[in-house]
Amino acid sequence: MTKLSEEMKAVRFLVAEEMEKLLVMPKTPEKALMEAMRYSVLPLGKALRPFLLMTTAQMFDVPKSISVRPAACLEMIHAAMQIHDDLPIMDDDDLRRGKPSNHKQFNEWTALLAGDALIARAFNVLAGENTLVEPPLKCELISEMARALGYTGLLGGQMLDMMAPQEDDLKLLDVKRMQEMKSAQLFIFACDAGAIMGKADYQARQALKEYAANLGLIFQITDDLLDVEGSVAETGKDIRKDVEAGKATYVSFVGVDQARKMAKALVPNCISALAIFGEEADLLRDLAKYMAERTK
Amino acid sequence: MTKLSEEMKAVRFLVAEEMEKLLVMPKTPEKALMEAMRYSVLPLGKALRPFLLMTTAQMFDVPKSISVRPAACLEMIHAAMQIHDDLPIMDDDDLRRGKPSNHKQFNEWTALLAGDALIARAFNVLAGENTLVEPPLKCELISEMARALGYTGLLGGQMLDMMAPQEDDLKLLDVKRMQEMKSAQLFIFACDAGAIMGKADYQARQALKEYAANLGLIFQITDDLLDVEGSVAETGKDIRKDVEAGKATYVSFVGVDQARKMAKALVPNCISALAIFGEEADLLRDLAKYMAERTK
Repeated sequence: MTKLSEEMKAVRFLVAEEMEKLLVMPKTPEKALMEAMRYSVLPLGKALRPFLLMTTAQMFDVPKSISVRPAACLEMIHAAMQIHDDLPIMDDDDLRRGKPSNHKQFNEWTALLAGDALIARAFNVLAGENTLVEPPLKCELISEMARALGYTGLLGGQMLDMMAPQEDDLKLLDVKRMQEMKSAQLFIFACDAGAIMGKADYQARQALKEYAANLGLIFQITDDLLDVEGSVAETGKDIRKDVEAGKATYVSFVGVDQARKMAKALVPNCISALAIFGEEADLLRDLAKYMAERTK
Repeated sequence: MTKLSEEMKAVRFLVAEEMEKLLVMPKTPEKALMEAMRYSVLPLGKALRPFLLMTTAQMFDVPKSISVRPAACLEMIHAAMQIHDDLPIMDDDDLRRGKPSNHKQFNEWTALLAGDALIARAFNVLAGENTLVEPPLKCELISEMARALGYTGLLGGQMLDMMAPQEDDLKLLDVKRMQEMKSAQLFIFACDAGAIMGKADYQARQALKEYAANLGLIFQITDDLLDVEGSVAETGKDIRKDVEAGKATYVSFVGVDQARKMAKALVPNCISALAIFGEEADLLRDLAKYMAERTK
């Protein structure tokens, strides 16, 4: 087992443990809502965003015992977006993480409410039960997380993604912009959150954002590749959905081979963005290499 | 014009002006999302929740110039919930505030994303661009707003509301609990937010919460009555929807006459909850009386 996979496993364990504390089943009738919220969070997926947050926090000497709570909140936001994304009125996906998507397991209105409630719970915890982070830093975390999620971030990207099949002359540049918003924004926030908590200076924050933006693109390109090349068993979700929906992806624009090359070509960008850091950034470097070659 | 209606009009004006500052149309392609966000916020409805927030804040000498921003954020949350609520997978309402509901004006995925993006924008502003409130108080505002929205608040109540038609032996007590979560929680938060910003003591906060809980019930009962007795022109939304959907409402449980009596009987509860306050709470007292007799 490599250092990277060991560390990713350790983070998954800690975040899952934290989720159990933050998403406790109530005894009241509305427990059906919490059941649906938990269903899409646990068991955890790869927990990439929590890993980025906790790894960057550690680079600035913020221990995992402090960063695990914001990391869990970020994962809630990510899960909420997956739930809404899978709804028939959006991407209409039946499978997620190898099990029925939320609205298939429950129903559509439950999935809608569960997504909303995960967003609310994330901000509730981040502002309230996040007592190990001081208030001004908490406010910055919340503001930045909400921005990364909002109309200039992930949700704006989703909007462009849904609009794309209706556009006649979409360009590769537009696809890049859309993917940067849709995928990279939460990666950028994850790295920035670690830096915020660690009171990193401007230069360090910018370097990490640059790294994360490139990593997000690698992630999205390989995600598109998996949609074309992967199997349902490997990816745990429906494949060839994007192709069938006429979605604007890297692969649909430049083809499989070229897209694979593009992903690999972005790795040096990630590495050079981290040039100001020493070996404390080795996990981030390893992650970029791993991401470009992932098969699930 | 009474003092109450004058003040409500003044608040509406200030909040609308603030919304224009907070929901600026971007020039980028994702402006379509902001257009949908703005559509469900402007022109403002009655702006009851902002009115409660700004009125209670003023009771503790917090000027409207400071309280208007959190008030606008609360209204964004309220609008987001209306958008999601109106979707065909929830209540399937075609009309809201006298115009087509969001998904009718745009489409269902746009409405889903616009609701999510309004929630994100509300927390983004509350944590970031809310510089007139000090960080520890901001964190308390955010935490409480998210809790009021979440699985133990409005969204938990929505869950119970949607589950109700499937239940065999729903009791009036369950309806009360559901309505307290669904409607009263944002009213309670609105009053508490003013008290938080004004650093009110425990006794004052409890008194205002007690007032708001009763006001929320009056609001919900009269809302149910309008669904049965009102006209589309008066209410600006589809009527008799609850009756047709077999929803559990006060009116369906106790009938029109009894429900009207219940609403009026709650006014003294509101008044007595405010006993510790002097004339600075007169607007709140007037609002309770107005609410019990409202016809739109």
